[in-house]
Amino acid sequence: MLNPCSPDFVASLAARLPETLTAPEPRWLEEPRGKWQGQAGAVARPRTTAEVAQIVRACAEARVGLVPWGGGTGLVGGQVMTEGPLPLVLSLERMNRMRAVYPSENVMLVEAGMTLAEVHAAAAEVERVFPLTLASQGSCRIGGNLATNAGGVNVVRYGNARDLCLGLEVVMADGTIWNGLKRLRKDNTGYDLRGLMIGSEGSLGVITAAALRLFPVNRAEGAALLVVPGPAEALALLALAQERLGPGLSAFELISGQGLAFLAETMPQIRQPFAEAPDWMVLVDLGLTGGDPEAELVGLYEAGAEAGLVLDGVIAQSSAQRAGLWDLRETIPLANRAVGAISSHDISLPLSEIPGFIPAATEALMRLGPFRINCFGHLGDGNLHFNVFPPKGQKAAEFKALAGEVQELVHQRVVDLGGSFSAEHGVGRLKVGDLERWGDGAKLAAMKAIKAALDPHGIMNPGAVLR
Amino acid sequence: MLNPCSPDFVASLAARLPETLTAPEPRWLEEPRGKWQGQAGAVARPRTTAEVAQIVRACAEARVGLVPWGGGTGLVGGQVMTEGPLPLVLSLERMNRMRAVYPSENVMLVEAGMTLAEVHAAAAEVERVFPLTLASQGSCRIGGNLATNAGGVNVVRYGNARDLCLGLEVVMADGTIWNGLKRLRKDNTGYDLRGLMIGSEGSLGVITAAALRLFPVNRAEGAALLVVPGPAEALALLALAQERLGPGLSAFELISGQGLAFLAETMPQIRQPFAEAPDWMVLVDLGLTGGDPEAELVGLYEAGAEAGLVLDGVIAQSSAQRAGLWDLRETIPLANRAVGAISSHDISLPLSEIPGFIPAATEALMRLGPFRINCFGHLGDGNLHFNVFPPKGQKAAEFKALAGEVQELVHQRVVDLGGSFSAEHGVGRLKVGDLERWGDGAKLAAMKAIKAALDPHGIMNPGAVLR
Repeated sequence: MLNPCSPDFVASLAARLPETLTAPEPRWLEEPRGKWQGQAGAVARPRTTAEVAQIVRACAEARVGLVPWGGGTGLVGGQVMTEGPLPLVLSLERMNRMRAVYPSENVMLVEAGMTLAEVHAAAAEVERVFPLTLASQGSCRIGGNLATNAGGVNVVRYGNARDLCLGLEVVMADGTIWNGLKRLRKDNTGYDLRGLMIGSEGSLGVITAAALRLFPVNRAEGAALLVVPGPAEALALLALAQERLGPGLSAFELISGQGLAFLAETMPQIRQPFAEAPDWMVLVDLGLTGGDPEAELVGLYEAGAEAGLVLDGVIAQSSAQRAGLWDLRETIPLANRAVGAISSHDISLPLSEIPGFIPAATEALMRLGPFRINCFGHLGDGNLHFNVFPPKGQKAAEFKALAGEVQELVHQRVVDLGGSFSAEHGVGRLKVGDLERWGDGAKLAAMKAIKAALDPHGIMNPGAVLR
Repeated sequence: MLNPCSPDFVASLAARLPETLTAPEPRWLEEPRGKWQGQAGAVARPRTTAEVAQIVRACAEARVGLVPWGGGTGLVGGQVMTEGPLPLVLSLERMNRMRAVYPSENVMLVEAGMTLAEVHAAAAEVERVFPLTLASQGSCRIGGNLATNAGGVNVVRYGNARDLCLGLEVVMADGTIWNGLKRLRKDNTGYDLRGLMIGSEGSLGVITAAALRLFPVNRAEGAALLVVPGPAEALALLALAQERLGPGLSAFELISGQGLAFLAETMPQIRQPFAEAPDWMVLVDLGLTGGDPEAELVGLYEAGAEAGLVLDGVIAQSSAQRAGLWDLRETIPLANRAVGAISSHDISLPLSEIPGFIPAATEALMRLGPFRINCFGHLGDGNLHFNVFPPKGQKAAEFKALAGEVQELVHQRVVDLGGSFSAEHGVGRLKVGDLERWGDGAKLAAMKAIKAALDPHGIMNPGAVLR
C-alpha cells in the first residue's frame, strides 16, 4: 500500500531540494475535458535529472505515489490521480533545456519539459523538421508526447512518437538513472527499453530527456481537399496516392460532411470550402524535396476522378491556401467541443475494415438514439475519431444515460474487427477497464509482470494503465 | 537450475506430439562462422502455434531449456547453446505458412518459419515490397529476423525489422499464447510488448507469427557508385543526398579500397569498377514512384563534384548495371571470409563521430600490428563493419593472440564515442560479456528484472543476451 504525500514528507523533501516544491495549483490538477479532478500533496518542479532522481528515490523509500506531469494536455486522465493516497505531482516544466543539436546527424537532444512548439522551433533553427504535429503543440511537452506515444496528422509518413525517438534518459522507479540517450539508428544491445518506456504513460519511470530524429525540410509542399463518394473510395484513393506520391505523402485525413455542418453551426464566420457540403472529403498533404507538388496533386485528382474516386476538389495554389485547408481540418475538433459530444472514440481499425465499420456502426447507433456522428481523422493510419453527438438543439447531457451504451457498442465492434479502442490517446485512467476487458490475457499478464518488476512498490503514476 | 532435455523428457513429449521430435542433426548445432558447436537433447519441429505452446509448457514444467531456431544464420551464437544442461532445440521451420495477405492495407500475416526470400516472393505476388534485405535471405527465417531485430542495407529508408512489424503472435515462456497479430498503425493500449519481443533473441518467448508492413513497389530505381575523398565527404554527400532525393534514398553504403583489393586478391575474375581502386566509395541506391532516377543521380553526382565531395563515379544505365553494382557490394563479405578476419566488428556510431573514428582507430590498431582494415557497410545508418585482417600472405590464425586486444580497442573506442558494439547482429552468446561490461547499469538491471518477470524459470534460450 502507498502512503500519502504528507506535510512531513513534503517538508523533508523541501529541506533537501529548496525552491523545488510548491503547493498544488489548479493547473496541475485539471485536464482539458474537465472530466476529472486531480489531487496532490505537493508539486515538485525539479531543474535537473539528478533532482528528479532524488525525488523519485525519496518517493520509493517513503512509498509515496508519483504522477509525472508534462503539459497536462492528455485526454485520458493519465496526468490526474483522482483517488487513493495523495500523490506527489512531478512536473517536468523546468527541465526545458535543449541539450545539443546535431544537424549533420539529424538528431537533437532535448529535455522532457520543452513544449512541442519549442522543439519545432529549435529544429527549424537548423533547417530541419521534427514532424510530430498535434493540436496542443503550444502547451504539450515532449516528455509527455513520448510517455504517451503521441500520434497526430503526420504518422502516415513519419510514424508515431516512438518512431521519432532514438534514445531516452529515464529515471527508473528506484531513482536510478538510465542513460540511454543514444544517437544511433541501429543498436542491438539488449531489450528495447526505449520502446517500452515510450507509451508506458509514466507508469514505469520518468522520461527526463530524449534523442529525437530530425528530417530535412520539405522544399515544396502542397495540399488538396478532395471530395470522395465514401470511405471505401477514400481508401482506394489512399492506395493510389501512395503509389503515385510514394513517401512524399505527409498526411491523409478524412473529413465528414457532419464536421463541416458543425463548423457552419458553431462558427458561421468560417468560410466553407464547397457551396454544398459534401458527405465525405479527404485532405491530402504532400511534402517533396523539390518538383511541383501542385502538379502532383492535380495528377492525383485527375487519376482519382477517372477511377471514380474523386468527385470534386480544391487544390491549394499557395502556402496560404494550404494553411487555410489545414485550419479547416484543425478547427473541426473545436466545433465538436462547441456542440458537445455524448461519447468520443479514438479508434483504429485494419484499413480494409473501415468502409464496412462506418455504416454498420452508424446504423447500430441510430437504433439507440437520434444521434449525429462526426467521423474524421487520420485515415492514412486507420485512426478515426468516431464521435457521437446529440441531435441539433439538444445537449449531450440529455443523453448521458446512453453514453456508456454508445461507447460499449463502438468499442465492442472495433475490437471484434481487430481494431484498437485507444489508437493514439493512450489508456490513462479512462480506459483501464477497457484494457482489462478487451486486452489480450497473455499481454495483460506480461504487462503486470513488467510493472511489478520495474516498479515493485507501485509508486509510478498509480492507477494509470494498470489498476 | 535447469534440467537436461533427457531421453525420458523427449519420450514423454514425443508421445503427446508424434512426428514432431527428432534427433539433433548437425545443421541445428552449427552456425555460419564455425565458432561454436551447439548441443541438444532433441529437436522439436512443431507445425502449429498450439504445438509450440504445448512444447514450451512442457519445458517450463520440467525446467528444460529451450533454444528457438529459425534459419541458423545468426552471427553471434544466439542459436547454439554450447554449454549447460542439454536444451531442446525448437525449430520453427515447419511453421512456414502465409496466413493472409491484405494488399490494400499493405499488410501480410506470416508464420515465423517462412524464409525471408519466401516473404519477399509473397509480397511481390501482390505487387508489394517487404524491404528487409540481408545476404542470408535465402535461408534465414522471418521469425529469426524479428527475434534479432535484423538490419541490412535498406534501413536508412525503411528502418530495422522492428519498424517493419505491426504485430506478433508469441508463445510466452509459460506456454500461454499472446495473440498480438494486429494490423494497426496506431494502437496505444498498453506497453510495447511487440517492440520488447523483437530483438530479445528468443530469451523472452517464441515468435510464431507476425503482421508485416508492406510498401508500394518502386516503379523506377537507380544506383551509383561514387568515389569520395574520405568518410567525412561521404557523410556530407549523405546529407546532400537526403536533401536532394528525400525519402527516395534506399541505401547509402560505404565501400573501401581495401574491400576492392580483397576482391581482386580472392576473386580476380570479378571486374573492378575503376581502373585504379579508389580509397573510398559510396553506393547510392534510389527508388522512386516515377520520374528518372538516373537523372536524379547525375544531379547528385554533379552537385557533389561541385562541392568537392565526389571525385569520380559510375551511374548505372540499366537495371542490369544496378544489379552489378550491388553484386560488387554483396561480394565483399565473401572476399573478407576468403581472406579471413582476425576480428570483425559490427559497430554503429553517431554519424558525426565516424570521420574521426576511422583514422584514429586505424592508427591505434597499426600500433598493435601490421593489419589490413576493411571498413565498409551501412553508412546511412552509422553502421560500419570495421573488420581487421592480417597482412597479405599471412593468416588470421597467426594473430590469434592479438584478437582480443584488437576487439577491445575497437569496442572501447566505439563506446567512448556513444556508439554500439552490436549494431545489427545482436548480443547472442558472443557479446554477453561486452553487454555486462559496457551496458548501462540501470538498463541491465531493468533487463534482468524483465527477464525474471517474463521467464521466471530461465528456460528461454538460456545464456543468450543475459547470463
